Amino acid sequence: MTPLTREECAKLDTEDPLAGFREEFTLPEGVVYLDGNSLGALPKATPERVARVVEREWGADLVASWSTAGWWDQPRALGAKIAPLVGADTHEVVVGDSTSTNLFKTLVAALRQNPDRKVVVGESGNFPTDLYVTQGVVELVGATERRVAPGEPDLEAALATGDVAVVVLSHVDYHTGTLRDMAGVTRLAHEYGALVIWDLCHSVGALPIELGACEVDFAVGCTYKYLNGGPGAPAFTFVAERHHASARQPITGWHGHARPFEFSGEYVPAEGASHFLSGAQSLIAAAALEVSLELWSRVDLGQLRAKSLALTDLFVSLVADAGLTLVTPLAEERRGSQVSLRHPDGPAGEAVVRAMAERGVVGDFRQPDVLRFGFAPLYLRHVDVHDAAMALVEVLRSHG
Amino acid sequence: MTPLTREECAKLDTEDPLAGFREEFTLPEGVVYLDGNSLGALPKATPERVARVVEREWGADLVASWSTAGWWDQPRALGAKIAPLVGADTHEVVVGDSTSTNLFKTLVAALRQNPDRKVVVGESGNFPTDLYVTQGVVELVGATERRVAPGEPDLEAALATGDVAVVVLSHVDYHTGTLRDMAGVTRLAHEYGALVIWDLCHSVGALPIELGACEVDFAVGCTYKYLNGGPGAPAFTFVAERHHASARQPITGWHGHARPFEFSGEYVPAEGASHFLSGAQSLIAAAALEVSLELWSRVDLGQLRAKSLALTDLFVSLVADAGLTLVTPLAEERRGSQVSLRHPDGPAGEAVVRAMAERGVVGDFRQPDVLRFGFAPLYLRHVDVHDAAMALVEVLRSHG
Repeated sequence: MTPLTREECAKLDTEDPLAGFREEFTLPEGVVYLDGNSLGALPKATPERVARVVEREWGADLVASWSTAGWWDQPRALGAKIAPLVGADTHEVVVGDSTSTNLFKTLVAALRQNPDRKVVVGESGNFPTDLYVTQGVVELVGATERRVAPGEPDLEAALATGDVAVVVLSHVDYHTGTLRDMAGVTRLAHEYGALVIWDLCHSVGALPIELGACEVDFAVGCTYKYLNGGPGAPAFTFVAERHHASARQPITGWHGHARPFEFSGEYVPAEGASHFLSGAQSLIAAAALEVSLELWSRVDLGQLRAKSLALTDLFVSLVADAGLTLVTPLAEERRGSQVSLRHPDGPAGEAVVRAMAERGVVGDFRQPDVLRFGFAPLYLRHVDVHDAAMALVEVLRSHG
Repeated sequence: MTPLTREECAKLDTEDPLAGFREEFTLPEGVVYLDGNSLGALPKATPERVARVVEREWGADLVASWSTAGWWDQPRALGAKIAPLVGADTHEVVVGDSTSTNLFKTLVAALRQNPDRKVVVGESGNFPTDLYVTQGVVELVGATERRVAPGEPDLEAALATGDVAVVVLSHVDYHTGTLRDMAGVTRLAHEYGALVIWDLCHSVGALPIELGACEVDFAVGCTYKYLNGGPGAPAFTFVAERHHASARQPITGWHGHARPFEFSGEYVPAEGASHFLSGAQSLIAAAALEVSLELWSRVDLGQLRAKSLALTDLFVSLVADAGLTLVTPLAEERRGSQVSLRHPDGPAGEAVVRAMAERGVVGDFRQPDVLRFGFAPLYLRHVDVHDAAMALVEVLRSHG
């Protein structure tokens, strides 16, 4: 596309149906924040809600809040709020623990759902914790990891051996911003008799997700990136309804028990995704997430995706001649809400990111040579993207 | 002891070296809170610290806070603050996840440390999540659970078969308030070649703990009861230094990696207890816990224990003739900071607890017949205990 002028960008902002959301976030003065793919911005309503859970629910009402403030059911209530963002039914999602722990639980459960097979396929270059957790699980249960190069051709070759129990993939790659074909890859895995676990950390809140329509088996994801749940906010777990009756995760704590307040000595799994809960979760962290998910309930995901593509298109077109190599696929069906650019002189790229930060444009750098810019459509304007691109061009020129 | 009058209690309060701590907590007007063994009270300094992590560290400083606000090291920094409360070295404790998940990790690690044995011993009546997690682990790794009646005689009989890898016990029983002989039981287990995991949920912050001196192998515990970290606050894990080089937990996430920011594809365990970390933890929840642990750093645990025993003694003496059966051992070396009383007509006990709550005395009821009263020495006065006991006596009389 032809690069737009700043005036043209300003005009697009006036026509943006999501423009009003920007006012619902606290953003530091003079900063263009392109790191919402790492830590999402703070909703303005969050501090008051957090103060309420601390001062009223905890401080004043104390233990009574387990029932009166809905604390016990919060992992399910938050899951129900995430469900529409990922194309799931409300009872298929629960919130709690970290993405790493939830991947651990779902991977063990998925292996048990496919007991005649012992191979877990992952892709090199996936976010390290996915690879590490897979290593931990296969060592624990006596399975085997088969790691392939990213992409459907190598994946299909790995599946074709007929011994693959589970495939673990990221929906959007954290490093390159590549979006995978969730429907196609899931179908491919199923054709070869494998189950699929999708890591949604870099896609949830960045684009529409259709776990149900894609017949996904399990999914995990975090809420502190595009979902604005706060630093280290609790993660979520999706378990497709068809697995509810038989899927068994291994961290069988009392929050996943069918009748926890009977204090019986034998574990009986709760129904639905609730069985995937284990122990107590911070209700303060949960309150912060509750606020952002209420905000998210008003977002049209189609509008979100359209704006995300427009912003990333805009950025790519404005930095096209800057001397960096585009890593993120331009094809819309392969693009997340992020633009990754490779610097010809790897380590110098880190200095570029620092120099941009000094000019108020916050992106990040990932070893060995990638500049990473995330585009959160709820609080970024076209003019912000224009300013960020110009800053990048100028920094590269002055660092040249 | 002879029951004290309210005036004598008031005099004891004026002489109480811990009396000043009460002013550091928010307590609802007109309430005597005897449920701090379930959810500890709110420190007055917490709301401001939580507002700071939300508004400044998250809202204003955003991702930079991972380094500038010490977010990345928070699980170790909080662990170092818990260490002196449990008699551990700073690098032996980390904070994160739930007690259930931490028990899962330590139990798998302990079984791997004792690879020629496959039996895990637990006690019936232990807090259900400990039993449930043990069930989950033995099923997962092909070990066996052997559950015995509480107490050293049955435990020794179970150990004497010579095949026990690990013993999982609670330091203070959640139901009865019984305190175990940590040194003696740990020694007993070691003599029979077993390792020990102690659950400290009902003892940490209630009395001094000497994990190092007792040569404990692993321990887990929560921070939302006597430690006042907030509802669902993160739990902690203790790993004795002698196990650091070889102990391996199974949820191998990137927060437990030796060099996480290299984003390498192979998991390399971090040194010390840090290897027991897995994924991201709420930094908002962590900030709340940080406040309470700073308060706890000023507490003399000897004074704490002395006051705890005085308060429970006082309560027991005042309700001695009320028609309930004392469940908690009177012997000091066997008593936690809680008093459990059995009601002769089980279900009626629940109504008694409700009637007390209407009079502003908050305790709780545990099936089938136990009235449970926790005594948090930092914010309870002798006069509070007197008032609570009188309320119990009156309620029992009117319900008679």
